[in-house]
Amino acid sequence: MSLTCVGLGPGGADDLTLRARAALEEAEVIVGYTTYVNLIRDAFPHKEFVVTGMRGEVERCRLALERAAAGSKVAVVCSGDPGVYGMAGLLLELAPEYPGVQVEVIAGVTAANGGAAVLGAPLMHDWCSISLSDLMTPWEVIERRLVAAAEADFCIALYNPSSHGRSDYLARACDVLLAHRSGNTVCGYVRNIGRTGEEHCLMTLSELRDTQVDMLTCVFIGNSQTRVIDGRMVTPRGYQWEAR
Amino acid sequence: MSLTCVGLGPGGADDLTLRARAALEEAEVIVGYTTYVNLIRDAFPHKEFVVTGMRGEVERCRLALERAAAGSKVAVVCSGDPGVYGMAGLLLELAPEYPGVQVEVIAGVTAANGGAAVLGAPLMHDWCSISLSDLMTPWEVIERRLVAAAEADFCIALYNPSSHGRSDYLARACDVLLAHRSGNTVCGYVRNIGRTGEEHCLMTLSELRDTQVDMLTCVFIGNSQTRVIDGRMVTPRGYQWEAR
Repeated sequence: MSLTCVGLGPGGADDLTLRARAALEEAEVIVGYTTYVNLIRDAFPHKEFVVTGMRGEVERCRLALERAAAGSKVAVVCSGDPGVYGMAGLLLELAPEYPGVQVEVIAGVTAANGGAAVLGAPLMHDWCSISLSDLMTPWEVIERRLVAAAEADFCIALYNPSSHGRSDYLARACDVLLAHRSGNTVCGYVRNIGRTGEEHCLMTLSELRDTQVDMLTCVFIGNSQTRVIDGRMVTPRGYQWEAR
Repeated sequence: MSLTCVGLGPGGADDLTLRARAALEEAEVIVGYTTYVNLIRDAFPHKEFVVTGMRGEVERCRLALERAAAGSKVAVVCSGDPGVYGMAGLLLELAPEYPGVQVEVIAGVTAANGGAAVLGAPLMHDWCSISLSDLMTPWEVIERRLVAAAEADFCIALYNPSSHGRSDYLARACDVLLAHRSGNTVCGYVRNIGRTGEEHCLMTLSELRDTQVDMLTCVFIGNSQTRVIDGRMVTPRGYQWEAR
């Protein structure tokens, strides 16, 4: 009895890997959040789709595991990579309650890497992925990570930079970063990566502090070496410039 | 005049995205390091391939940019994601010397995410990518990042954990981490991700300290919450366990 957790990549049906596509072709039942299922429904018209709302993560996992335990080949789909703020962990946590179900994870391009490609190459050197969502993580932990990332000159990708009810989180995060990093640090964001309505913008860290973004946006903060080259955000590979 | 920098993903020909595959189909000339070109040569038998050795990154980029400037449709291929320790940054740095050449980056699944899927879900919460290669980065910078990542309880993916001439770097990195993290922290590694001879192993941070790995290995260090569940490495999504 098998269940695959499949990453769709950041964008549409072109952004998944061939391995992911093969897993979806093999599945009898595809389970996922409405928005993500809609991205692939047209490509797999003959599948059974089971869609659940945003907050039903545990319910969605149990439903998928139950169908797998009952003998169906099930694929759970996630945007981006299922192992980065996705469903892979919860499925593996719950799987022992469904003896005989083997969970396989198929990686996808996570939003940080998909968005980076749009902006140029902002994550070429050591980088951190930080979510600003405090639904299941105390803000103190998030703030400690922002400080650590800023002090150690990591490039940073911020997930979940805003949502209804916490529209000032990006500004708060920037205030934390600005205590350790220059206001001229090169930053950028990408919204709707790889999808209709994709938008991107470069700016300084000081400007980012006063920028409003939404939940569909990934935000990038460069390290001390990051520059703008012909309108692209580029972090060099090292701290010694290579002889040309 | 266009040049695409294409990520092949961590493994073989199945691990690239449909978008990446389409870009390779459209290219007239495919440029890359021998090992990576060999991974896709069979899938594209009628292309012109230009291969260069490991240390020729600048030469490889210039060669690709020259061919693009001369009118060919060129694709530069990288393992994993070209924007993470790959060629995207160097191409964008050099491109202004080749007026008219537009560089497009096509993301791939980076080794951290590909390897994470093999182990389970070790990078489910905030995580850092750190390369232990000190070819272009002073060891002091690397060490500062290890300390920051350990103190702020990030999950960590280590790239380039060893090579000829620096076989003790992983042990040195573990010593730095062990000053801030429990020796029982769940760790793991994956070698040859998605390729023939793929191997993986879970262990504690103390055990990792005395483990020999090679350059084809990605190493994973969990956060304080990471556990082993049915032989898989799983980091929970947050610090409050969700009501089941």
